[in-house]
Amino acid sequence: MIVVMATNATARQISEVIARIRAMGYEVHLSEGEERTIIGVIGRGDPLDKEQLSMQEGVHEVLSVTHPYKIASREYHPEATTFALGQHTVGAKDLALIAGPCSVEGREEIIEIAHAVKEAGATALRGGAFKPRTSPYSFQGMGEEGLKYLAEAREQTGLPIVTEVMDPSLVPLVAEYADVLQIGARNMQNYTLLHAAGKSHHPVLLKRGMMSTIEELLMAAEYILSHGNMRVMLCERGIRTFETYTRNTFDINAIPVLKDITHLPIIADPSHGVGKWEYVEAVSLAAVAAGADGLILEVHQDPESAMSDGRQSLTPKRYHELVKKTVALANLVGRNVPTAQPVGA
Amino acid sequence: MIVVMATNATARQISEVIARIRAMGYEVHLSEGEERTIIGVIGRGDPLDKEQLSMQEGVHEVLSVTHPYKIASREYHPEATTFALGQHTVGAKDLALIAGPCSVEGREEIIEIAHAVKEAGATALRGGAFKPRTSPYSFQGMGEEGLKYLAEAREQTGLPIVTEVMDPSLVPLVAEYADVLQIGARNMQNYTLLHAAGKSHHPVLLKRGMMSTIEELLMAAEYILSHGNMRVMLCERGIRTFETYTRNTFDINAIPVLKDITHLPIIADPSHGVGKWEYVEAVSLAAVAAGADGLILEVHQDPESAMSDGRQSLTPKRYHELVKKTVALANLVGRNVPTAQPVGA
Amino acid sequence: MIVVMATNATARQISEVIARIRAMGYEVHLSEGEERTIIGVIGRGDPLDKEQLSMQEGVHEVLSVTHPYKIASREYHPEATTFALGQHTVGAKDLALIAGPCSVEGREEIIEIAHAVKEAGATALRGGAFKPRTSPYSFQGMGEEGLKYLAEAREQTGLPIVTEVMDPSLVPLVAEYADVLQIGARNMQNYTLLHAAGKSHHPVLLKRGMMSTIEELLMAAEYILSHGNMRVMLCERGIRTFETYTRNTFDINAIPVLKDITHLPIIADPSHGVGKWEYVEAVSLAAVAAGADGLILEVHQDPESAMSDGRQSLTPKRYHELVKKTVALANLVGRNVPTAQPVGA
Amino acid sequence: MIVVMATNATARQISEVIARIRAMGYEVHLSEGEERTIIGVIGRGDPLDKEQLSMQEGVHEVLSVTHPYKIASREYHPEATTFALGQHTVGAKDLALIAGPCSVEGREEIIEIAHAVKEAGATALRGGAFKPRTSPYSFQGMGEEGLKYLAEAREQTGLPIVTEVMDPSLVPLVAEYADVLQIGARNMQNYTLLHAAGKSHHPVLLKRGMMSTIEELLMAAEYILSHGNMRVMLCERGIRTFETYTRNTFDINAIPVLKDITHLPIIADPSHGVGKWEYVEAVSLAAVAAGADGLILEVHQDPESAMSDGRQSLTPKRYHELVKKTVALANLVGRNVPTAQPVGA
Repeated sequence: MIVVMATNATARQISEVIARIRAMGYEVHLSEGEERTIIGVIGRGDPLDKEQLSMQEGVHEVLSVTHPYKIASREYHPEATTFALGQHTVGAKDLALIAGPCSVEGREEIIEIAHAVKEAGATALRGGAFKPRTSPYSFQGMGEEGLKYLAEAREQTGLPIVTEVMDPSLVPLVAEYADVLQIGARNMQNYTLLHAAGKSHHPVLLKRGMMSTIEELLMAAEYILSHGNMRVMLCERGIRTFETYTRNTFDINAIPVLKDITHLPIIADPSHGVGKWEYVEAVSLAAVAAGADGLILEVHQDPESAMSDGRQSLTPKRYHELVKKTVALANLVGRNVPTAQPVGA
Repeated sequence: MIVVMATNATARQISEVIARIRAMGYEVHLSEGEERTIIGVIGRGDPLDKEQLSMQEGVHEVLSVTHPYKIASREYHPEATTFALGQHTVGAKDLALIAGPCSVEGREEIIEIAHAVKEAGATALRGGAFKPRTSPYSFQGMGEEGLKYLAEAREQTGLPIVTEVMDPSLVPLVAEYADVLQIGARNMQNYTLLHAAGKSHHPVLLKRGMMSTIEELLMAAEYILSHGNMRVMLCERGIRTFETYTRNTFDINAIPVLKDITHLPIIADPSHGVGKWEYVEAVSLAAVAAGADGLILEVHQDPESAMSDGRQSLTPKRYHELVKKTVALANLVGRNVPTAQPVGA
Repeated sequence: MIVVMATNATARQISEVIARIRAMGYEVHLSEGEERTIIGVIGRGDPLDKEQLSMQEGVHEVLSVTHPYKIASREYHPEATTFALGQHTVGAKDLALIAGPCSVEGREEIIEIAHAVKEAGATALRGGAFKPRTSPYSFQGMGEEGLKYLAEAREQTGLPIVTEVMDPSLVPLVAEYADVLQIGARNMQNYTLLHAAGKSHHPVLLKRGMMSTIEELLMAAEYILSHGNMRVMLCERGIRTFETYTRNTFDINAIPVLKDITHLPIIADPSHGVGKWEYVEAVSLAAVAAGADGLILEVHQDPESAMSDGRQSLTPKRYHELVKKTVALANLVGRNVPTAQPVGA
Repeated sequence: MIVVMATNATARQISEVIARIRAMGYEVHLSEGEERTIIGVIGRGDPLDKEQLSMQEGVHEVLSVTHPYKIASREYHPEATTFALGQHTVGAKDLALIAGPCSVEGREEIIEIAHAVKEAGATALRGGAFKPRTSPYSFQGMGEEGLKYLAEAREQTGLPIVTEVMDPSLVPLVAEYADVLQIGARNMQNYTLLHAAGKSHHPVLLKRGMMSTIEELLMAAEYILSHGNMRVMLCERGIRTFETYTRNTFDINAIPVLKDITHLPIIADPSHGVGKWEYVEAVSLAAVAAGADGLILEVHQDPESAMSDGRQSLTPKRYHELVKKTVALANLVGRNVPTAQPVGA
């Protein structure tokens, strides 16, 4: 940390800032310029509160030279984090292809779509049993019944299950059925839920909040990681901007940035990222080209009748087309679609 | 709702859309233009899903002519909602002046500041016992111990208590101590928490999420209201924009807009809205001039030592100055500061 | 400036950075921490390019400790800038009350509205002769004919004229008729136009771009000031955010911030800032309460027939009501409405 | 257009709205619901002002069912617009690979980099002679001297020239030297400049403003197109959002959206879109995967010494790597890099 004193700071103010820093177990390094004094904070003491320091009299500004997350950073953990998702590995060469409906709408429906996405090449099944809806009057999901149907779909297809949990007290229940706990964008800073997910030691798919910075996403991940639960996938699903033509603005920049600064796998969610099915393929290919470790996509056998998010859902046929293009692209960027048929087959 | 068909929609597509609308219990009104057909949806049937309709073949766009919230709207409830907060009434002529530290930091500290803000003219005490912090390594609040100190501060000063609850399972505990349950900006769309607050039938201060539209704020309130809990105050606390000079951008427009479209009281939080104490007074006066029903402000006896949010905290002395200016301004805009000394006293 | 070296920077990289800084005429101050070296840049040499320095090998980050504008800053010019606008002074105790239609629509129309706003208490007349319109098919203004009508309105009412100039080559023409050159939000970074306005030495009203930070606004002002033209008013007119209920988000925070960091007068434009006439009064009072030096408002005798911006235009009657409330508020915040009738008159 | 009347609109108000619409040469279609009346506007009359209609008494809202741009739309011109850029064609199968420094810094420098990007596979040379800089104290470009050096570079390499014009009065001068007039992001709504570019009938590269919607970009293009100048390329270069880790947020969604709704070619500018050279390759490949018609990239022989934008500039070597990857990707998405060596060569 660097403390920049005001141009008119007094000698006494400077001494008091130094005393405070030393009291926390740090050394200081003084740089007395013509215009102002700058104090470097050196060493490893108690956590220093940047805001407190900036409130000291005579202080102009406090500048951080490091980021606030630790376990999530590449510096802490240079190797990419990888872990099993069903028969495949997330974060390594294989792309994770997670697909399924927005909501579980019934037993037959989820089993049918599970078979359909598996045939199309998916490596995991998504589907919401507990749904966060903007309106209290909208369909809120099938609850535990939906979880049971998801488990049955897994039994029949072998696809691991990714499903959302919204209530910290339901983490054990959802973890009983699901292979991956999804934490939704609206709950990215629901710290009670993050703690519960951390303690569960279950794999987590953590979605970026629609107005959260990349740094805040990593801080949210840090909550989970701080419990020793390292199996966390980050998910870019679009941010909120002034542009209203698309539902969100998919932050393609976040893919290479996250690959650079964290070791956690990055999954792209173009369904929410663009919000209209006709643009989902283009954004999906873009995400893979930019280095994403996988795609999570909404697929529904009859989007027009979907109970939620039909506007952005692909049909199984369109999803199959997309997977075929992803196979070719994956090879080009040094990745692999594990469910792809061998060439010529 | 109005369904705008595509210019090239076929007669069969039009019939199918009409059939679907009728199947939900509505009548249709057809307008066949030269370029396209427009279908008006008339009557009161089952809830219609705008997204589903927009997915029907041949549909260009579906336009809403009403807003999605009901109980929160002025149309539903034309009179302003008012309710007791301690000895005063929120939402009527009296301004609510809620003040106190960001966090409860200890027994003596909260009791001291409670007396200080009371003397300055506050009508309620704020202070966090459970703190949502971006970093898992930051101070997370004193928990139930903090709630007990708040209750003791109330006993000594008579000020009702406003404090945050983050965990749905802790709503009963917090409601036992607090007069008002605060739901923080990060949890505005934590629907499990909203349901729990609704069921508690305890007064609620609902903060607008930094990324949430005015309509989404009202939809979040609707979750609470739908349980019959009508004692909800809305809180504008600044939104996230591209501007980084201030912590947030206080949305002054939201004050007159909310006063117009909802009957719920609107409290302004300029401490978070601007994020630097030196600008808090200006934004507070602006909020009252624009029609806010109250102010919630961070006040700390020693902002430089505050465990959180010191940068935006007023000293008791500065808070007292602000209250004095608010008294004069309140009269001008037809409001009243109930704790104000009579003129000439 | 402070250069933060990477944790793994080599001694050679450090030497090269130091050499580069010295070559520009600065001294360096070295702080060698356990983890990294930090280099302070001291003295006054040639302008240093932050970006260039940050590109040097081994550099982690370059931090500025000063802002990039000079003449616009309070540090450079601690006293508030004031100058004459008609019979009154802008930037001192008197509020500037600029009012009139979005566009000049005809001779009679502008003369009529000029009389109306004068009677209501305005101190200057606004009206566009050259209109920046999103669509090439919309009314683009009356051009020089409109300027002539504005001049005639001034002759009849004594109100000075504020009108927009969009084309650098037309600055002399517009300056011939207008008392204040308005530079619109879309042109805030039209540097050719800023240079032309600077060279004209005519008073300027510079609107903040809807996408521009406070710092960028001051940098744009710096273009004008750098020609020795100090008669610049800044105008906050709302920024673009994700909120769509209002046309823009009026950045009330910007008022106290600008009053703090610059000496230039700040005019508020609530008509554009909120975009709906029914909310304009609330936001206008808020702006004055927050410390604005004046208001620029759209007033039209028949908003329903206005050729542009009718949705946000006040009638003369409503404007008159607003001015009356402003008079009372001005006294409260230590300001004055120069056209106000003496109390009791 | 659809006029939604208020629930309490009177019969007289409804008649007046209808009369107004008819007076403009349209027919109306009335839909009288239980709650409100809705008026459809039918036919082709004089341009109707949505805002004016929405100001009529008794009107709740006016909804558009069409977009405001015409010549730019796919509906008006279903075939993709293509035109020659040097020896290749923009907007057809060939990708346009435009590369070069941010600024022309000298004769030798621009000629050297022109040869370097040509060897790497570029199809056009970029370089600014007139530079829009945030600060009046920064390097503003070499002016006409820079244009001459660009022309010399073209002579030696055969690469057509893309360079920015900021001043409407300089359009003829810049058009004399340049093959493509670039209109920068800050000038996207500089209508005087857009008109001048339209009248020049010279090819134009129109950059999206950093806070402009897709619709506003097309409206800006419409200004140029309305003069009969159809040779317009649109350029997505990142928008301004709350995220500060990257310089801008490259709007990858805009690529498939623009390909869908307009016939004009879309060029991606990942250099500005992400702002740090280490992420430029990932975003470039993403843009091509999403369907862009070309890439405009900043390349500098010594980014550390660049007079502007060094932080986002590639070295010629890195650019060459990027082009090689683009060749492979282009084939995959049905495009072609015209300068690519035949496979096996």
